[in-house]
Amino acid sequence: MSSGAEALPQVWIIGTGLIGASIGLALRRAGAEPVLQDQSVTAMTLARDLGAGRLGPRLGYDDDGHPEPDLVVVATPPDITPAVVADALRRWPGATVTDVASVKGVIRHDLVRLGAPLERYVGSHPMAGRERSGAIAARPDLFEGRAWVVCADEGTEPAAVERVERVARAVGSVVSRLTPDEHDAAVAAVSHVPQLAASLVAARLEPLSEHAVGLAGQGVRDVTRIAASDPGLWTQILAGNAGSVRAVLTSLRDELDGVIGALEDLEHGLDEDAPGARAVLARAIADGNAGHSRIPGKHGAAPTAYALVSVVVDDRPGELARLFADIGEAGINLEDLRLDHGLGLPFGVAEVSVVPAAAGPLEDALLARGWQLHS
Amino acid sequence: MSSGAEALPQVWIIGTGLIGASIGLALRRAGAEPVLQDQSVTAMTLARDLGAGRLGPRLGYDDDGHPEPDLVVVATPPDITPAVVADALRRWPGATVTDVASVKGVIRHDLVRLGAPLERYVGSHPMAGRERSGAIAARPDLFEGRAWVVCADEGTEPAAVERVERVARAVGSVVSRLTPDEHDAAVAAVSHVPQLAASLVAARLEPLSEHAVGLAGQGVRDVTRIAASDPGLWTQILAGNAGSVRAVLTSLRDELDGVIGALEDLEHGLDEDAPGARAVLARAIADGNAGHSRIPGKHGAAPTAYALVSVVVDDRPGELARLFADIGEAGINLEDLRLDHGLGLPFGVAEVSVVPAAAGPLEDALLARGWQLHS
Repeated sequence: MSSGAEALPQVWIIGTGLIGASIGLALRRAGAEPVLQDQSVTAMTLARDLGAGRLGPRLGYDDDGHPEPDLVVVATPPDITPAVVADALRRWPGATVTDVASVKGVIRHDLVRLGAPLERYVGSHPMAGRERSGAIAARPDLFEGRAWVVCADEGTEPAAVERVERVARAVGSVVSRLTPDEHDAAVAAVSHVPQLAASLVAARLEPLSEHAVGLAGQGVRDVTRIAASDPGLWTQILAGNAGSVRAVLTSLRDELDGVIGALEDLEHGLDEDAPGARAVLARAIADGNAGHSRIPGKHGAAPTAYALVSVVVDDRPGELARLFADIGEAGINLEDLRLDHGLGLPFGVAEVSVVPAAAGPLEDALLARGWQLHS
Repeated sequence: MSSGAEALPQVWIIGTGLIGASIGLALRRAGAEPVLQDQSVTAMTLARDLGAGRLGPRLGYDDDGHPEPDLVVVATPPDITPAVVADALRRWPGATVTDVASVKGVIRHDLVRLGAPLERYVGSHPMAGRERSGAIAARPDLFEGRAWVVCADEGTEPAAVERVERVARAVGSVVSRLTPDEHDAAVAAVSHVPQLAASLVAARLEPLSEHAVGLAGQGVRDVTRIAASDPGLWTQILAGNAGSVRAVLTSLRDELDGVIGALEDLEHGLDEDAPGARAVLARAIADGNAGHSRIPGKHGAAPTAYALVSVVVDDRPGELARLFADIGEAGINLEDLRLDHGLGLPFGVAEVSVVPAAAGPLEDALLARGWQLHS
């Protein structure tokens, strides 16, 4: 259907929610014409109306008269993914089938139980999502610059892996090859356990008084932002990665027990020196420092320490525009920005991150233009 | 020393680190002339050089020839705060003494043991801080719009409370009255437990491979941002609030044990239905939803749902300037902004929050100016 240096395979997308519809939009932008399928006629026609591809037959209905797929992308909820993948592998003996579920081991386990031909199956996981769901929230740039994990093993046909990776690159992703176990262990630590921790911390706020919760600052806001996530989807994800999440969570719980023990020693021995207790607390914070430093910086590079320039910004239209115009005129590239709003006051502080060498020139430029700042 | 509708008391600041020096800068901006004291001549003269006030005698040295304070603000590390407060109460029988430690019960407990005259002591806690420490990081706007907790009881002189609150308002804070126990329970939930959770989650990243940690997205970055905090200071804070932190942490640990149990049921019964296990997981996420919704929105108002407009922004100087100029020209007030950088790609996505009624007009305005966006 498309031409170019890397011709795209004929793709069928099964499941036209946020991820499936976004893949459709991105593939059409890349010149392909994907076929859309869903259990729900409303969901598949909505995705078509939004420009994600052309309508195939409703899932489970006769598909005569439609071009046979080279690649089937199963983007259904994780619970029904194995059955849909197995069915696609049987229906189209020449096709590669992939899925996009955020757990990989349990899908493979179920496919083995279902007797599916695994040499044409390539599990994958685009590391992208939104706080909203459904085709209506889809966007063609959802995957741009994001990792797309591809899980193959020695039994997987090389041509199948190549088809999946071609599509991953076509939608703008960066391919990362991991085994299913490596994938599941990684997402347990970088995604599933952080989600549970955010939820458990947020739940502690529920019984607080208005006065108490009014003391919440930026720290707890950051820690609990993802606690607004959907319980239904997360129950499927956590249940599907139970082993890996349990392993990471148990290690966290063991350290937590040590911290609670140290706090008990300090609490009951308020006037004594509670030997060893402070070392446990200091170690917990220091280990967190070490782990935090492992997170890569922007653009996938090694962690970078940016310099911070803080600017007082009135909370009215045009003030941030004026600030950014002034930064742009100074010829300085802004690396990151955090807006910090005051409590009950009509202004905030914009914390502007720049490469360290640019901080001095930026401060000079902003002061010369009348901004109030403090380094 | 100063005039105006609310004359400021003569303030001595003992301890010229980040908080003490920032109070000095803010009070000078408000027209007062605070006296600075520290154990370290370097620390107090640096704060003086930065404009935080005028030099008093070095802490512990003779203070003849200096005006007697109306209010002493003790801004030392929490560990030595009670001894410094008790000494100030003895030295100046007409003065009010406050401290700014982020724990309140243990300070009061120690003052009782030291036999200090508590009617002139008012514990307080300005809810402000930075990721950097020392006078060099001080800024006069550090407290603007932030809560300043004031802890008084029936034994406290009303005039003493009034002096502390006048200074809190003078530096731009919003006064919040709590008892020491209420304060300590509140900060355990909104600050100390989130800090420990962030540290414990971040520590789980330490042993990961480069590939695994490369999958880190915005979620884990937000959850672990404060894991970069200082172990020495946090050991003092956690040890000083051991009882309240232990209580919140134990409740978290109990729910965590339930989650681990549910995951074990699901892990060992991979092919069975593990009765009740999914309900435990769904409840953990749903309880997090409920707690998260308690966090007040910006400006201390009730939580507000803003509409999100996402814009693709090239990663070069001037692009954000152009975006903000266009938003400003559209006459629309930006409520919040999050920059989301792609992995290995030369652009990012700016997620712009506006009041819901402004989202449509903003999208129209940005599309008309050639921006690529998706709602």
